[in-house]
Order: sequence, then C-alpha cells, then structure tokens
Amino acid sequence: MQVAVIGLGSMGMGAALNLVKAEGLSVAGVDLRDAARAEFAAAGGLPAASGAELPPGAEAVLVLVVNAVQAREALFGPLGAAPRLAPGAVLIVSSTMSPAEARALAAEAEARQFLYLDAPVSGGAAGARAGALTVMASGSAAAKAKAAPVLDAIAKKVWDLGEAPGLGATMKVVHQLLAGVHIAAAAEAMALGIKAGLDPETLYGVVTGAAGNSWMFENRMRHVLNGDETPRSAVDIFVKDLGLVTELARAEGFPALLAAQAQQLFTAASAMGHGGKDDGFVIRAYQALTGIRLPKD
Amino acid sequence: MQVAVIGLGSMGMGAALNLVKAEGLSVAGVDLRDAARAEFAAAGGLPAASGAELPPGAEAVLVLVVNAVQAREALFGPLGAAPRLAPGAVLIVSSTMSPAEARALAAEAEARQFLYLDAPVSGGAAGARAGALTVMASGSAAAKAKAAPVLDAIAKKVWDLGEAPGLGATMKVVHQLLAGVHIAAAAEAMALGIKAGLDPETLYGVVTGAAGNSWMFENRMRHVLNGDETPRSAVDIFVKDLGLVTELARAEGFPALLAAQAQQLFTAASAMGHGGKDDGFVIRAYQALTGIRLPKD
Repeated sequence: MQVAVIGLGSMGMGAALNLVKAEGLSVAGVDLRDAARAEFAAAGGLPAASGAELPPGAEAVLVLVVNAVQAREALFGPLGAAPRLAPGAVLIVSSTMSPAEARALAAEAEARQFLYLDAPVSGGAAGARAGALTVMASGSAAAKAKAAPVLDAIAKKVWDLGEAPGLGATMKVVHQLLAGVHIAAAAEAMALGIKAGLDPETLYGVVTGAAGNSWMFENRMRHVLNGDETPRSAVDIFVKDLGLVTELARAEGFPALLAAQAQQLFTAASAMGHGGKDDGFVIRAYQALTGIRLPKD
Repeated sequence: MQVAVIGLGSMGMGAALNLVKAEGLSVAGVDLRDAARAEFAAAGGLPAASGAELPPGAEAVLVLVVNAVQAREALFGPLGAAPRLAPGAVLIVSSTMSPAEARALAAEAEARQFLYLDAPVSGGAAGARAGALTVMASGSAAAKAKAAPVLDAIAKKVWDLGEAPGLGATMKVVHQLLAGVHIAAAAEAMALGIKAGLDPETLYGVVTGAAGNSWMFENRMRHVLNGDETPRSAVDIFVKDLGLVTELARAEGFPALLAAQAQQLFTAASAMGHGGKDDGFVIRAYQALTGIRLPKD
C-alpha cells in the first residue's frame, strides 16, 4: 500500500518514521524544508518537496500541517497532492482545525470521490515518535477501514467518534480547551505562589502529589522551573487553539468563560514577544503584571 | 501522649481513627454531634461535646473544623480547649484559612505560650481514612517536633514549608486555586462537548487518556456522568476556598484572573441551589446558560 505524509514537522516526522518501519507500506513524505526531507530519506522514506512531486497511486495520505488553510493547500492547491492520489484514496487529516473547517474539507474531498477521515491527534512529538498517538476519528466506515493500516502504525488508541466529519475536530478543540486552561492556571498558581513567598520547587512537589495536579501543570511547570523555553508546544499554538475553542463556542451559543480568559493571557504573552517559547511561559504575562522573578531568570 | 482532635467531620474522623490506632497515643475527640461522638467512642476514642469537656493535659490538639472562625472558637472561645491543654502544647491547625488568619491564630497561641503549627491538609475524606493525608506545615522546629507523632499517624507526606506561620495556609490556598479552576474547567469542557454533540462518556475517555487530563477532571466528571451529587466536597466549599484565593491575591497585589472567574461560576451554582452538592455540579451553571441535558437527568 502506497502512503504519503504531508508535513514532516515534529508530529509528522514522528508519524512518518513509524509508517516507514511498518510492514507492507511504501511511504512518501512531503515537506518544503530540505533538512526534513533529508532526515526522512535517510530513514528510508521517499522525499518530495510538494504534493505534485509525489509518485502516483497513494491510497492514503496523512496530513499533519499546522492548520486548515495549509491542509487545503497541501491537498487541493496548485501543487497539492490530490492529482497524484489513487481514485478513492483516503485523506486522513490530523491538523487541528475548527469543526466547520473539517466539514468543509470533507465536502471538498467527497466532491472529488475521495474518502475523508477527520482525525486529530494528541500525544505530542514524543507520542508521535513512539507510534503512540491518540487519534480522535470521525468519518465513514469505508474511510476508517482504508485508514486502518496507517492509524495502526502511528497510534496507541483510535477513538471512533461516529460517521460525521467534524466530530473529530470538535473533540480535539474541547480537549484543547482543557489543555490551554490548565497551562494558564498552572502559570497563575505558580506566579501567585512565588509572589506570596512560597519556594517554587516545593510548590511543584506539593501540587504534583496532590489533587490540584494536572498533566499540563506537571509537564509545563517543570520547563518553567528549569528555565527551559524550548517549545515542545509554543505560546502561539494556544493563541490559535484557544481561538478555535472560542470560535466553536460562539457557533454553538456557549459562553466559554475560562477558555476566553486563558486565550487573553496567551495573547498577552505572545504580544510581549514570547509567542515562540514553550507554552508554559505564558507565565511571563503574570510576571509583567506582578514583577515576580522566575527561578532561572 | 495525650492528643485531642477537634471536629469529627469527614476529615477529622478519619484522622482521629488513625490516631486511635497509633501506638502510644491517648486520643480524645470533640464534636457537637451525638452521632459523630458515638462513632468515635465505638472505635475506642474518648468523646467530648466541647473543648471544655476534654480531660486535662493534652500535649497536642489537631483542629479540623471548617474555617478560621470555628478554629478560634474551638481553641480560645468560652467552651474552647485552651484551658484544658498542657503548658506548651502544640496546636496543629489544619482547617483551610487565609494566611493572615493563620498568622493571627499563631500569634494568639504564642501569647498563651502554646506552640503553633500551620498545617493544612490535602487528600480528602478517603486520604484521611487511609492515614494518607498530605500535610503542608509551617512553624517552629519545636512545634514540628512536638507534632511529629500526630502527623506520622495521619499523613503519607509532611511538607516542611519553613518557620513562618502562614506559609502552610498560603500553599493550601494556592493548591485550591488549581483545584477550583480545574473543576470549573472540567465542567466548561464537558458542557461544551455535550452542546456540540459529543458523547459524554467518550469525551471522558479521550480526556482522561490524554494531556488535557487533571486529577479533578477524572474524579469529578465521573460523578457528573454518574449523576451522583453526593458531596465528597461541595460547591460551597469552593465558593469559600476560591474566596480565600482572591483574598490572598488582593493582599499580594496579584490579578488571579482564572480563579476569580471560577469563583463566579461556583457562586452562580450555589445561588441556583446547588451549594450542597458535589462540586462537579458547578456544571449546573453552564447548563442554566446553555440548556444542555446531563446524561442522568
């Protein structure tokens, strides 16, 4: 089975390398960047600089670019992959986007007789490298069946959310509500603790051993305490993803009070010049408001 | 060593029963409620209806009443325990209160030549019953030494936060910021997911297996999905505790944006008549705003 991966970033590269290792798949990878293509080729994959350069006949294409605009361009743009795909191929679109965008892309795919799987992922770059992503999938039974060999190679768990495209995107957006609010709450608590005279490492120890813990507090406040601003996921990702949350909420007539507040905090941190840093450094917004000193500053 | 426990509620009873089981301690327990005293007596403890009824000579008293007002009354009020305690006894005060209240109580204790340990706890009723509380302790070395046999019997972990009374309370209040925001965020995400057409049980499964999880989401949304309103901790507890957060924040000149928003949500749920229910039912506030149906309604 011929498979293509579009977008060899931290998520896409991890997924692509696991597909290369899987039996029975011939895997091409698309990325604009020379370095990404070279890494992929060295691992045994077939590199391409655009969808138009793909060998013909792929039956499945996994899209792991940043957003819906890039996904549409990569599939249906002038240099997109669509003309190179086998008739009836499945488009597995894992970029985070709004449910409305997912439904629009699915309609465009169906108009061209392709199968479409709305399939956002969770697990980060580490999960992608380990072949242990969580996939939140919605689409037709035919799309799910055709996508199965690809998902088997990259995921530890595939959730079947139903037939309708958009349900996968909805689940991912609701998940990002929690992820974003938890990061902002972690920053708020850590900053208040520092302001009130607590030792930051002790605060980290108490919280991570108690009922106030979250996956994000444990993971991201470790980066903040270490002064490690390297972005596993960046502040600007949550400006975008919490934007998708408030967009979904507006469409549904739902007041997402905490998500909206968190979005403003990420927006502030980004406006201060921290958009490319690890998202835990949304704490810089609280620092600007209160003058606290972070441990490694 | 003679020990007294004041307040045989869900937390105090669990701690008191573990003290009864510990070697070398003679344990009295104070509660206004006949049923609580009867349960404690049946387990081998010595019941008392007020501090004034305690046998003389206790060297340590553990206070697990609801707030600072009750703690002061239980220790220094007309029927308080203070006159029955041994000279130089240690007052271990585990009620959740503001750092300012903890410092004031400590000063009152020191004026009477008692030792004072500011010692809030985390772990809930289940942790108290198991002798597995987390204690966040600040106070003098003498207070910590004298309190050690009591804390050994009730805690799995005792954090030493320093000498100054108020640091324990500060840590607990910062912890409650996270706990309260996480419960409100869990409710917001679950309600948005339901509004947008996701299956609530599937949403629970996806989140608890992914990076959007928190201890509170996993614990409290289970109650919501089960339609189980029995309060392990109630909505009104977080009206109070998030009030302590905003009080600390104001005192420190700190804008606690997410905590303030969460407090308003718990206040709304309480005003709607849900104050005595499991705190996960803060989701009733979102239900009122959006008309969603919860699974067991």
